[in-house]
Amino acid sequence: MSVVLGTNRYGKAETRVVRVVKNGGTHEIRDLNVSVALSGDMAETHLTGGNSKVLPTDTQKNTVYAFAKEHGVGEIEEFALLLARHFVDSQPSIHLARVAVEEYFWDRVEPAGGPGERRHSFVRSGRETRTAVAHYDGERATLVSGLKDLVVLNTTGSEFWGYLKDRYTTLAETRDRVLATQVTATWRHVGHTVGRSDYAKSYARARRHLLEAFAETHSLSLQQTLYAMGARVIENGPEICEVRLALPNKHHFLVDLAPFGLENDGEVFYAADRPYGLIEGTVLREGTPDDTLAWR
Amino acid sequence: MSVVLGTNRYGKAETRVVRVVKNGGTHEIRDLNVSVALSGDMAETHLTGGNSKVLPTDTQKNTVYAFAKEHGVGEIEEFALLLARHFVDSQPSIHLARVAVEEYFWDRVEPAGGPGERRHSFVRSGRETRTAVAHYDGERATLVSGLKDLVVLNTTGSEFWGYLKDRYTTLAETRDRVLATQVTATWRHVGHTVGRSDYAKSYARARRHLLEAFAETHSLSLQQTLYAMGARVIENGPEICEVRLALPNKHHFLVDLAPFGLENDGEVFYAADRPYGLIEGTVLREGTPDDTLAWR
Amino acid sequence: MSVVLGTNRYGKAETRVVRVVKNGGTHEIRDLNVSVALSGDMAETHLTGGNSKVLPTDTQKNTVYAFAKEHGVGEIEEFALLLARHFVDSQPSIHLARVAVEEYFWDRVEPAGGPGERRHSFVRSGRETRTAVAHYDGERATLVSGLKDLVVLNTTGSEFWGYLKDRYTTLAETRDRVLATQVTATWRHVGHTVGRSDYAKSYARARRHLLEAFAETHSLSLQQTLYAMGARVIENGPEICEVRLALPNKHHFLVDLAPFGLENDGEVFYAADRPYGLIEGTVLREGTPDDTLAWR
Amino acid sequence: MSVVLGTNRYGKAETRVVRVVKNGGTHEIRDLNVSVALSGDMAETHLTGGNSKVLPTDTQKNTVYAFAKEHGVGEIEEFALLLARHFVDSQPSIHLARVAVEEYFWDRVEPAGGPGERRHSFVRSGRETRTAVAHYDGERATLVSGLKDLVVLNTTGSEFWGYLKDRYTTLAETRDRVLATQVTATWRHVGHTVGRSDYAKSYARARRHLLEAFAETHSLSLQQTLYAMGARVIENGPEICEVRLALPNKHHFLVDLAPFGLENDGEVFYAADRPYGLIEGTVLREGTPDDTLAWR
Repeated sequence: MSVVLGTNRYGKAETRVVRVVKNGGTHEIRDLNVSVALSGDMAETHLTGGNSKVLPTDTQKNTVYAFAKEHGVGEIEEFALLLARHFVDSQPSIHLARVAVEEYFWDRVEPAGGPGERRHSFVRSGRETRTAVAHYDGERATLVSGLKDLVVLNTTGSEFWGYLKDRYTTLAETRDRVLATQVTATWRHVGHTVGRSDYAKSYARARRHLLEAFAETHSLSLQQTLYAMGARVIENGPEICEVRLALPNKHHFLVDLAPFGLENDGEVFYAADRPYGLIEGTVLREGTPDDTLAWR
Repeated sequence: MSVVLGTNRYGKAETRVVRVVKNGGTHEIRDLNVSVALSGDMAETHLTGGNSKVLPTDTQKNTVYAFAKEHGVGEIEEFALLLARHFVDSQPSIHLARVAVEEYFWDRVEPAGGPGERRHSFVRSGRETRTAVAHYDGERATLVSGLKDLVVLNTTGSEFWGYLKDRYTTLAETRDRVLATQVTATWRHVGHTVGRSDYAKSYARARRHLLEAFAETHSLSLQQTLYAMGARVIENGPEICEVRLALPNKHHFLVDLAPFGLENDGEVFYAADRPYGLIEGTVLREGTPDDTLAWR
Repeated sequence: MSVVLGTNRYGKAETRVVRVVKNGGTHEIRDLNVSVALSGDMAETHLTGGNSKVLPTDTQKNTVYAFAKEHGVGEIEEFALLLARHFVDSQPSIHLARVAVEEYFWDRVEPAGGPGERRHSFVRSGRETRTAVAHYDGERATLVSGLKDLVVLNTTGSEFWGYLKDRYTTLAETRDRVLATQVTATWRHVGHTVGRSDYAKSYARARRHLLEAFAETHSLSLQQTLYAMGARVIENGPEICEVRLALPNKHHFLVDLAPFGLENDGEVFYAADRPYGLIEGTVLREGTPDDTLAWR
Repeated sequence: MSVVLGTNRYGKAETRVVRVVKNGGTHEIRDLNVSVALSGDMAETHLTGGNSKVLPTDTQKNTVYAFAKEHGVGEIEEFALLLARHFVDSQPSIHLARVAVEEYFWDRVEPAGGPGERRHSFVRSGRETRTAVAHYDGERATLVSGLKDLVVLNTTGSEFWGYLKDRYTTLAETRDRVLATQVTATWRHVGHTVGRSDYAKSYARARRHLLEAFAETHSLSLQQTLYAMGARVIENGPEICEVRLALPNKHHFLVDLAPFGLENDGEVFYAADRPYGLIEGTVLREGTPDDTLAWR
């Protein structure tokens, strides 16, 4: 046989781990994407499929979650090093580890009522885009303002129970979960009478109340949070008569650490991509007529 | 209170279900992305967070999987209708269902040895991109050809067992799994002596052998498949001296249908996004020297 | 100064060139993405910003276009090598060139009337996704089938002239242009009476007629092509009463090769990303009533 | 003919316009994505391809640029309305306009030397991701920290001239251009001796100096800026011995407003997607040996 194996590596890429640290009612959040690549004595698995020297990528993923609980993530450099050392030092067949970590930044939602109010609410740093849509048909103009990609997360203050059960139900009820969503919001202006400087103020106020309502609502369903967000914008913005919201439920599943002898008291979560719940709703000022032009 | 709830809906979006139908050794594959949106008597969950009329989106997801098993997917129009009727007809609080289905196309990997050879191997229709990289330093030129985004899947003929176990191992061994990957392959030409018409032929031959090796290898590890793919290209391409492969293990997890009283004999899978195993390796013609210019 | 410059390179990445070769009425199309990276005697531009040894990336882009005309693209390995040699051999300050080329595959739209009919119409290989959306409200069901990401291109047979001119008009009229679009089409079924085996046939027929109409319409505007596509589907599908189309005009701009002493007789195009025209329209069977349920 | 045209609209989507407002040395920046959709008397262009009532999407794009200069963008609601009114009021065949605007947020790079220092340097709000890669081979560990997706822009203080000219050169020299890039930076730590609290400080310091160097360098080439960025990080970080930078030149082309009788004194730019210059380079502390482990 004239063919030989050259350099190679394998591992679990893009393990999305969110680590919550709770100091009393004040929570910290760390949002990481961890990729592991291992090399070593791997000829057998390539040549014959014999796996006796292979640490499965599934185990690598588990290790990331377990270490996030046991050791915390510290600075990502430390977490990367800790994991790299672990794989090489614990497995004779692994001779080289590469651990890459990405960290996404979150800001604390600043409390309206001063520090101490909302110590478990976060917003992804500076992701959102401001939007506006105007329609004009020669006689009448409509204006819809909005934002998208505003990502927010509460580490506590969210429950989900008491729902319908049928033959296909497996979901366990929960009295404490992470609630995260990526807000797309649009709001219709009453007429289009806001003056120049006011559109910026109107936007800032609406954004503020979306954040406030998300943070301050003790949520029994994402629908409840949606309604609260829309209602708050209308109640505080006389220039706004309708709010439309689309809130994907960006699921953060509690990782089961019991197999590793570890408790997981709302500390280590897996941030899932798909599928996701998608909650859409409209909130209106009472008596507001439909406007088919505005939303075309 | 001057605020009212307008139109609204909720549901589970983007449930990725792969359904395998087995007629003896000949398998069929259907690859779907299903999004459910339900409306109805939902005032309570918006206003107070009371969920007694809410069918959780998790249950909707389970229903998609269970129906894929019980009823098959038929044409996607039928599957969408079946699900829509189910949600409205089975839950008094649900008055309107919208079910959207996307279907991704796969081609059967055509057997080299005539029909009947590889009846469980598939390739995503026409996704791949052909690549080439040339280097030239004034004296010497190098050529690396390749492809990317070639997505392939075997519905059987893949096992994974006998691996290392440690404190963090939870993965169950399997003697039959779906194996799917998105091939990125690059291969270095011996010198750059291939004539004009030959590059196209060389590409077609390499692509063919990558597919053949993926389909024909009874796989005990993705590394074994990787090595077989690279080796086959070199053995059948005298103009090629080195093959580099990156194979993400696009996990297809068997859905647990037992809670619904259904067996899942390798028929219904969840196509996961992240994390994924990533297997990288180089296969060389024996005696081939390194070429740092070619891979810069 | 204790800081030194290490390895470096620069170049123009992702030049999107489409090369048409015309053999009488039969056209060939090559669709490439070319990235150039050059290294050499580049200390000065890093240390002082002196650019006397820098060949601008804009010039590299021009070279890609000019070479596509002068030399054709041949196999992408040849095109990459040709460019790499050119940069190093023509510029003393350039000591190493890396040229990477990606090629996207197109299929010829197969003629209904036998070979020779549509020799300038192409479809991107296997990109499209089939879609279906069902609605059910307890009494009535609606079905909308469709497809997305079907990318098609005519290398001739498209004109655009006779349009409105105002103060902001700079566009030149043209009697021959490339017309390319990425079709999103949805079509509403009359009732939902199509039987099981027929949905697949219905889809195949609709897709076929979309392609046929795109290929066979001598286009004076993309709107005309849109209408022809929708009309053809309805005329040939008694089960279909409404077609909605969204056609982004994926602009392919003729590259001005005159500065290089080259003519460009519809041979070398730049495939632009943004902005793009977006043409949306509905075509209906006469007398078809609206159906607000179907399109919710 | 049993087929009729239903609702329809057309327009130019995603015109990317960057508007700079100069108050002496202090610049403001507005970064928009504008999409126009028009409806009206459009039967003819659908049915026969007659375009006498069609305002080309190219003209719509030009109007966006011209209005950005003539009227400024104000708040995006105002800009959307202004454009919508213009199209309907100026063209009898246009009966309805929809104008959608997205605005991306930028922060001013805060001056080290107090306000007044860098009044034309901006950073996209909160886009960047922090990265770390550890390698460990059983004996030695390496650490590379970094960031990606840090988008920065100078509205002045950048020139490009004095470069090589050849047969394919068409680029005009410029003494004042917008310079924008999306920074990917990685830096190697000397050993891995930084203590726990210091990694965060080290990151903040490196990020700060990347921004400072970008803002403070009067740039004659992006390579010069790259070198200055790397050098500044090393000079101010004794724990860092090597910096690798990849800087795509996110071209902002000055829009030619002369056909509309308008001057463009560095005020209205088109933000291009592809192709882009890509500048890559390494900056080292003098005497630093290579480390092949760190960058594997």
